[in-house]
Amino acid sequence: MEVPVGTLLSDAAQQAGVDILMPCGGQGRCGRCAVIVKEGAVHRRSTQRLSPDDVAAGYALSCQTVVTEDTVVVVPLQEKIERRLKESKRAEKVELPFPYAFDDQPLRKVVVTLEPPSLEDQTDDWSRLRRELVRRYNLKDVQASLPVLRRLGSALREGEWTATVVLEMDAWDRPEGPPRIIDVLPGEHLESLWAVAIDIGTTSNHVWLVDLVSGKVMSHKADYNGQIARGEDVISRIIYASKGNGLQELQQLVIETLNRLIGQAAKERGISTAEIYKAVVAGNSTMIHLFAGIPPESIRLMPFITVVNEVPSFPAREVGLGINTEGTVDCLPGIASYVGADITSGVISSGMCDEREKLTLFVDIGTNGEMTLGDCSWLIACACSAGPAFEGAGVVHGMRATEGAIEEVWINSKNYEPTYRVIGGIKPRGICGSGLISLLAEMFVAGVVDKSGNVDLTLPTDRVRQGEHGAEYVVAWADETAIGEDITITAVDIDNLMRAKAAIYAGFSVLARSVGLSLSDVGQMLIGGAFGQYINVEKAIQIGMLPDMPFDQFHFLGNTSLRGAYMALLSREMRQRVNEVGQMMTYLELSADNTFFDEFNAALFLPHTDLEQFPSMKELLEGR
Amino acid sequence: MEVPVGTLLSDAAQQAGVDILMPCGGQGRCGRCAVIVKEGAVHRRSTQRLSPDDVAAGYALSCQTVVTEDTVVVVPLQEKIERRLKESKRAEKVELPFPYAFDDQPLRKVVVTLEPPSLEDQTDDWSRLRRELVRRYNLKDVQASLPVLRRLGSALREGEWTATVVLEMDAWDRPEGPPRIIDVLPGEHLESLWAVAIDIGTTSNHVWLVDLVSGKVMSHKADYNGQIARGEDVISRIIYASKGNGLQELQQLVIETLNRLIGQAAKERGISTAEIYKAVVAGNSTMIHLFAGIPPESIRLMPFITVVNEVPSFPAREVGLGINTEGTVDCLPGIASYVGADITSGVISSGMCDEREKLTLFVDIGTNGEMTLGDCSWLIACACSAGPAFEGAGVVHGMRATEGAIEEVWINSKNYEPTYRVIGGIKPRGICGSGLISLLAEMFVAGVVDKSGNVDLTLPTDRVRQGEHGAEYVVAWADETAIGEDITITAVDIDNLMRAKAAIYAGFSVLARSVGLSLSDVGQMLIGGAFGQYINVEKAIQIGMLPDMPFDQFHFLGNTSLRGAYMALLSREMRQRVNEVGQMMTYLELSADNTFFDEFNAALFLPHTDLEQFPSMKELLEGR
Repeated sequence: MEVPVGTLLSDAAQQAGVDILMPCGGQGRCGRCAVIVKEGAVHRRSTQRLSPDDVAAGYALSCQTVVTEDTVVVVPLQEKIERRLKESKRAEKVELPFPYAFDDQPLRKVVVTLEPPSLEDQTDDWSRLRRELVRRYNLKDVQASLPVLRRLGSALREGEWTATVVLEMDAWDRPEGPPRIIDVLPGEHLESLWAVAIDIGTTSNHVWLVDLVSGKVMSHKADYNGQIARGEDVISRIIYASKGNGLQELQQLVIETLNRLIGQAAKERGISTAEIYKAVVAGNSTMIHLFAGIPPESIRLMPFITVVNEVPSFPAREVGLGINTEGTVDCLPGIASYVGADITSGVISSGMCDEREKLTLFVDIGTNGEMTLGDCSWLIACACSAGPAFEGAGVVHGMRATEGAIEEVWINSKNYEPTYRVIGGIKPRGICGSGLISLLAEMFVAGVVDKSGNVDLTLPTDRVRQGEHGAEYVVAWADETAIGEDITITAVDIDNLMRAKAAIYAGFSVLARSVGLSLSDVGQMLIGGAFGQYINVEKAIQIGMLPDMPFDQFHFLGNTSLRGAYMALLSREMRQRVNEVGQMMTYLELSADNTFFDEFNAALFLPHTDLEQFPSMKELLEGR
Repeated sequence: MEVPVGTLLSDAAQQAGVDILMPCGGQGRCGRCAVIVKEGAVHRRSTQRLSPDDVAAGYALSCQTVVTEDTVVVVPLQEKIERRLKESKRAEKVELPFPYAFDDQPLRKVVVTLEPPSLEDQTDDWSRLRRELVRRYNLKDVQASLPVLRRLGSALREGEWTATVVLEMDAWDRPEGPPRIIDVLPGEHLESLWAVAIDIGTTSNHVWLVDLVSGKVMSHKADYNGQIARGEDVISRIIYASKGNGLQELQQLVIETLNRLIGQAAKERGISTAEIYKAVVAGNSTMIHLFAGIPPESIRLMPFITVVNEVPSFPAREVGLGINTEGTVDCLPGIASYVGADITSGVISSGMCDEREKLTLFVDIGTNGEMTLGDCSWLIACACSAGPAFEGAGVVHGMRATEGAIEEVWINSKNYEPTYRVIGGIKPRGICGSGLISLLAEMFVAGVVDKSGNVDLTLPTDRVRQGEHGAEYVVAWADETAIGEDITITAVDIDNLMRAKAAIYAGFSVLARSVGLSLSDVGQMLIGGAFGQYINVEKAIQIGMLPDMPFDQFHFLGNTSLRGAYMALLSREMRQRVNEVGQMMTYLELSADNTFFDEFNAALFLPHTDLEQFPSMKELLEGR
């Protein structure tokens, strides 16, 4: 068929009788109308939602691309696009974060052959081994724990006086040693040296099994934190921990989860978990307290104090972590009750300290928005309680980002009809955090709600109506859902979401103001956390949750906490830097800060009372 | 009645019709004929078996004392003498071994009052405490373990930010600290500071509960080692430990015994065992291995190697010792498989290093004779396997030194009739180690056996006869015993005893010869161990077990091992000295030494093939 030069591919397709879904109403915002240009040239007005790789592969948004010459266009099956988008999002090939040198980390394996004892030399086993290690490796001394000594005699004899010794040369809390023996194995076993990086999230736990010889991640296992059944957020966990045997129970639950993951990873690589000699652990302060079995009670009570920010390293057997019983567990340091090791670790892995000329805002969004601002010559951090709305709680049809969750929504600005994408491609059961952000933004842009978040019941559509919980908008009719009822968003839900996004934005503002800067001074914004990874920046800006910066200044880093633990495992210098970040970071307690409430109230609008802070939205709204 | 001046009190008594028992036949050897001189002067030819206090109180041996003027003499009831002798022997009022200064030991209790946290100062509990301790006590740093951190938050809050911190400033294996927090108690608790000194004997365990404020022993508890049911000597324990769960079982048994004793001592002083913050432990190498849960297998196998001589100190929870779970357990160092911490500790407590001008021979006699010779500018040690004969095993009617054991024997040189003393004053059930030494000596002196230990069956008494196990001597007729059969000593028993005493004497000889000296150069002989305490020196010399030295050169020191642990607990310097003794001590392995076998064979006579080495016996035998 023929169309004039300058015709939109979407129009051409329509004329050709090919149905291309355009959930956002052809505004180039959702990326779901992508097609593949096989031959000929086209002009892409916008490639939003497409990666450079996508473009190179020929993808083009049919609502934003015009014909310039004869062209062959393939319309892919919708579900194929879905899968491709999701897979590229979730690809987790972990690259070495820096050139790795084995000697930069403190674990060693050495083979020693000892002169066997005789009636002429009755030196005890331990002195015999120590003497040789000290001599051969020019050490001042070397230490062994009781459990190692218990194995020593049989290991030396079984290996006929040749043994492989696993040594930890030093640790962050004893940088000058002496080296500590973690294991003694009969005979020679130099083939590998294993460790794990662990991230204990409130919701999900991650384990990376690392081969310290190459420094590479050899297996990645993740699962929900077994504590979830005892409370969805940190506050409910803390309350649970304070009752009866709750603390021990929660500790055991997370240890069970981690041990299962470590076991799976070890099995995948065909090794025994006893061959894993170290664990570096990141997580928020409550998770670290529960993992170590330290009562977290004071974290939730005024004035919000942790028992310990820098837990001393300890052998795995002290908490029952399923690696070698003598393997060192090194919990990365946090700085406050709500700015934990996930943030210090995240700062390191975000790379913000490698680009010191830029003012960076780093945020990890979960139940709390934990954020830090600075250039690594200074850092200031705070946490704002966003509430669990973004985690799907406190919202009638909210749910976690699991199968059946609506994760993205588009509303046609003409007829107010929504289109949505569901995780797993099945019938929806509810809406997850990224879906809620997307929904709220679309409702605002399409005019379903006003800047105060009020639903406009006068619109000519039965999607808006007066419901049990006030005015509401129907995202999915009962017959489209897996729950047999309408999936809606109510005025109360919207209020919760507004408060959550306002809290986060107010946090950004207060951080900047506290050092005499404004958000427009921020050179880059780094977003960590699994949740952050799935946020649609554009929509998050539209609701005023993220500051209005050029898209290319946003970087989604995924699980920065886990990656930071991995880096600290690979390098003493990185481990030291986590501590330095912790020491350098100034914590701003927002509950003690009146300007936070002012900023919070100012942010309780879409996108904000001060539209000047959102120039792109101002433009969009004015052009409407 | 009247007797001439110069009449023996015993003869006078006989003339007066008063029956005084003289088990040794009036040779002044047994002390059982003691009477009290109430008025008038007597001349004591000998006061053997009497202490200066006894003499001051008027006691005199009636067989060795002659009348010089008018005299009033009281003959005490026999059992009263028994009790007095035994009580004076067993009196255990422990004196401070040296002027005690609290600061000489590393445990401290300090009270700190912290500024409570606030929204302005959200420092974590641990940093808050550490900051204050470091500042107030001018420390470089201070450490806490996970279990202490687990209690920290509630302790600080319960005490409203005033807490008592139990600190261990240093330890022998980290002399420069940093100080380690053992406990944090809410509020102010400065009234006391408790610790224990422990001796783990193969047979019996001892616990001294020590108040570190005064340095005094406040309670002493002792009991049989719960492991006895799993083997009487170290070799059988080692074998038991090597099978199945044997090691764990033996460890648990000794821990149970110790915990019971600690519990009893704590109860006696009205304290909780959690208030006991340190334990210093002495014992032979096998006992220390079993206590720490370290397999002792290699101790009994050629070339007789311990796994570890110097066990690093560890928190009590690692072995389940019933003091504060974080309290330090400090096992004193041994130097070889059969020269353990009981000896290094014994050397310290024997005081031999305080009298350096004298050449000292220190011995702890048990299943093994462990001995050391030197003047503390040098020390040489060995252990000779005496076998369990002195512990009552390997002898037909042998038994441990418990109620019903014959502990001393006298044989009338004229009619070969024995008299004996039984522990508990009841009918005899057997003969214990000290009883066997006494019996063998008396048989030899009375002529029942010759110098080769052969029973003279030609004697005109039915006490000697041919029995099932060869020639034998009847110590007690069936109707006098609690077992309904004759208690005898057989040729086989005598052979075992000869070998045991020969091994010990050969040990002495080899030690002296190895440094080019002879036993006559020895200036003092110190005898440690509970068993040593009950040996009759004279009789031990008569059988050639102890060298023939003037009685006043022998000193019975009781439980030197326990006392050494106590001293190491009270003073860093003493603790350090135990290590120095261990490092200075040269171990002589007798199984690799041919001269030992020569000396052993030479000692297989009564008292010895070379009678010149036993001048007092030579005199006695020639005067016979």
